[in-house]
Amino acid sequence: MNGEIYLDNGATTKPYDEVVDEMIEMLNTYYGNPSSLHTKGIEAENAINHTRKVIAGALEVRIDEIFFTSGGTEANNIAVQGCALANRKKGNHIIVSSIEHPSILNTYKHLEQDGYSVSYIDVDDKGIIDLNHFEREVRKETILVSIMHVNNEVGSIQPIASVKKVLQAKGCDAIYHVDAIQSFGKVYLNPKQIGIDVLTLSAHKLHGPKGVGAIYVKKGTHIRPIIFGGSQELDIRSGTENVAGIVGFGKAVEITFRNFEQNICKMRSLRDMLKKGIIQEIEDIIIHSAHDEESAPHILNISFVGIKAEVLLHALEANNIFVSTGSACSSNKPSPSHVLKAMKVSKVCIEGAIRFSVSTFNTPAEITYCIEQVAANVKQLRKYMRR
Amino acid sequence: MNGEIYLDNGATTKPYDEVVDEMIEMLNTYYGNPSSLHTKGIEAENAINHTRKVIAGALEVRIDEIFFTSGGTEANNIAVQGCALANRKKGNHIIVSSIEHPSILNTYKHLEQDGYSVSYIDVDDKGIIDLNHFEREVRKETILVSIMHVNNEVGSIQPIASVKKVLQAKGCDAIYHVDAIQSFGKVYLNPKQIGIDVLTLSAHKLHGPKGVGAIYVKKGTHIRPIIFGGSQELDIRSGTENVAGIVGFGKAVEITFRNFEQNICKMRSLRDMLKKGIIQEIEDIIIHSAHDEESAPHILNISFVGIKAEVLLHALEANNIFVSTGSACSSNKPSPSHVLKAMKVSKVCIEGAIRFSVSTFNTPAEITYCIEQVAANVKQLRKYMRR
Repeated sequence: MNGEIYLDNGATTKPYDEVVDEMIEMLNTYYGNPSSLHTKGIEAENAINHTRKVIAGALEVRIDEIFFTSGGTEANNIAVQGCALANRKKGNHIIVSSIEHPSILNTYKHLEQDGYSVSYIDVDDKGIIDLNHFEREVRKETILVSIMHVNNEVGSIQPIASVKKVLQAKGCDAIYHVDAIQSFGKVYLNPKQIGIDVLTLSAHKLHGPKGVGAIYVKKGTHIRPIIFGGSQELDIRSGTENVAGIVGFGKAVEITFRNFEQNICKMRSLRDMLKKGIIQEIEDIIIHSAHDEESAPHILNISFVGIKAEVLLHALEANNIFVSTGSACSSNKPSPSHVLKAMKVSKVCIEGAIRFSVSTFNTPAEITYCIEQVAANVKQLRKYMRR
Repeated sequence: MNGEIYLDNGATTKPYDEVVDEMIEMLNTYYGNPSSLHTKGIEAENAINHTRKVIAGALEVRIDEIFFTSGGTEANNIAVQGCALANRKKGNHIIVSSIEHPSILNTYKHLEQDGYSVSYIDVDDKGIIDLNHFEREVRKETILVSIMHVNNEVGSIQPIASVKKVLQAKGCDAIYHVDAIQSFGKVYLNPKQIGIDVLTLSAHKLHGPKGVGAIYVKKGTHIRPIIFGGSQELDIRSGTENVAGIVGFGKAVEITFRNFEQNICKMRSLRDMLKKGIIQEIEDIIIHSAHDEESAPHILNISFVGIKAEVLLHALEANNIFVSTGSACSSNKPSPSHVLKAMKVSKVCIEGAIRFSVSTFNTPAEITYCIEQVAANVKQLRKYMRR
């Protein structure tokens, strides 16, 4: 098979051609500073406001509730630090799932050092939070709840609407933050309908550029900035805007949402084909991803028992297939996945876990080739390892 | 005159063609996540490390002392918040000039609310800090000093080497932070020679993309992150890197430093031509920028007495000339310049201040046309205003 077979779309995606085209135009022609008073500034300001409109449209929220950040990590930090610090007088208790992204969990660790109390909610063996545990942890002094929509390592969809119902039933008015970075464009989401207060997004997970994210903040939510400066983005995020990146983000969202259902169908069918093929061809595997309704359409996490995932990753790479062990979010540090640990997967099984993540750029022919190569390499590696 | 005459290069610059070319290549081909373990990740990681090498080379520092940020504002926030918070046990006193950028001053205001004590150093009528005042403010408990290299509104070069000498003479081991965002590529700077501990940079001021910055942190400096996550950039700045932006930054620095002296000469000669022309053609003006050795080569700040700068800005814009009132750093809020106020410029004079900022993309013909247009418009506007 010619060319590269990129199955690591949970880590990052290739930008759409149209995204790159629009970015080039911004860089070459509309290079003004959005804060400048003259036309060149206004052009740039209009361009970022167009993206604001596109994202607000995709989420069905108000335009003035969308703010741009330098990526998902910063968006999550603004959500968590910004809400915790702005509401300290109301309480110091926070609830979070145990399988959030490091940009959430490490921020909470930092807040714990600053005197906040954090409850970590358990998950089941498919990586879905225990709602009973969640309900038991809700307190009078709970000021913030962070639950991700789709887990980045195994693809489990969290019951975010049920979480809100528990909060309402218990009369808890904590700010409700949902990290939708891995779900945006892949699972339908309407923050207003559910009652989400703060939602975080990233461009590079849906064929936009790296270095751009966004945060939805419902009108009236108490939040404070973590970066101070020229008061851009209504003071939520100061700093000259990454205009080309923001415009690229808007284009990526436009394209993704133009064929929303179709894209999801395509990813799901590729993922299902891969899953079925691997089940058929290879024995001694454990599938960590949940079943259809409970799983995002693009992620498949599988342990190949007796194999070290990193070895399989490099073997597949030699055949031009790119996959991931766990996530790519923790800068080259291959420590055992905290997500699989929380799902109570055994240590030896965690060591053999591979994440395949498809996009609409993949083809059935690529999946067929991938199944063949995974099967051949697993067989080969098991031979060596069992010696 | 055909085409636009962009004289607002202090606000932002047009990217070099080669910068855009390299960014396109990264977006289209090397789109991997630098944290991924496979080749597509390693390619991206190598690309950002190349930029690290280029910037370290330009500053004559170690490669592992350069970290990427999402821009100048974030770099300044990491420098100020990161150093203040990491050294709180040593003391709570900070010294800063009164003409720093809002990303510095507003961060200090925030730290004051958190119990830090901040001394603001006076400047003279050319926007240069008063070293005697600075010396008087240095205390045993001073933990951080922030002095910008070149002021963004008037172009004054600060005596950053003398500041270090004062600190040494008084036996003060405060962290020394220099904001070099407006000076990088325009005024020679060697942080090791001077004894700077933390230095901040931005790509879009020297024909790189918006949304990328860097911070130099001398080995051994106590600093902590303000954004938490996957520990990218040695934990100084978590979050998937803006790979294309960082590569664009590297290219911009490479090109700028290839002809460093020549570029400075060109900018200075254009700026001097503009200054001379305006002095010759227009009466009742006040030049706020310092003389040659004390001024960056690209900035000229002039008050046209009796004229509202915003009106002149829009009049020039109608002739395709783009300039600025004060800076573009404070998102569309035309409040009176804090820099000119600190320089004790009268209120009426501040209202008439225009910042012209050239780049190597400008030509003598553009400057000639600009002088004509400024002269004609000032005459016209004064006629109306004096009625």
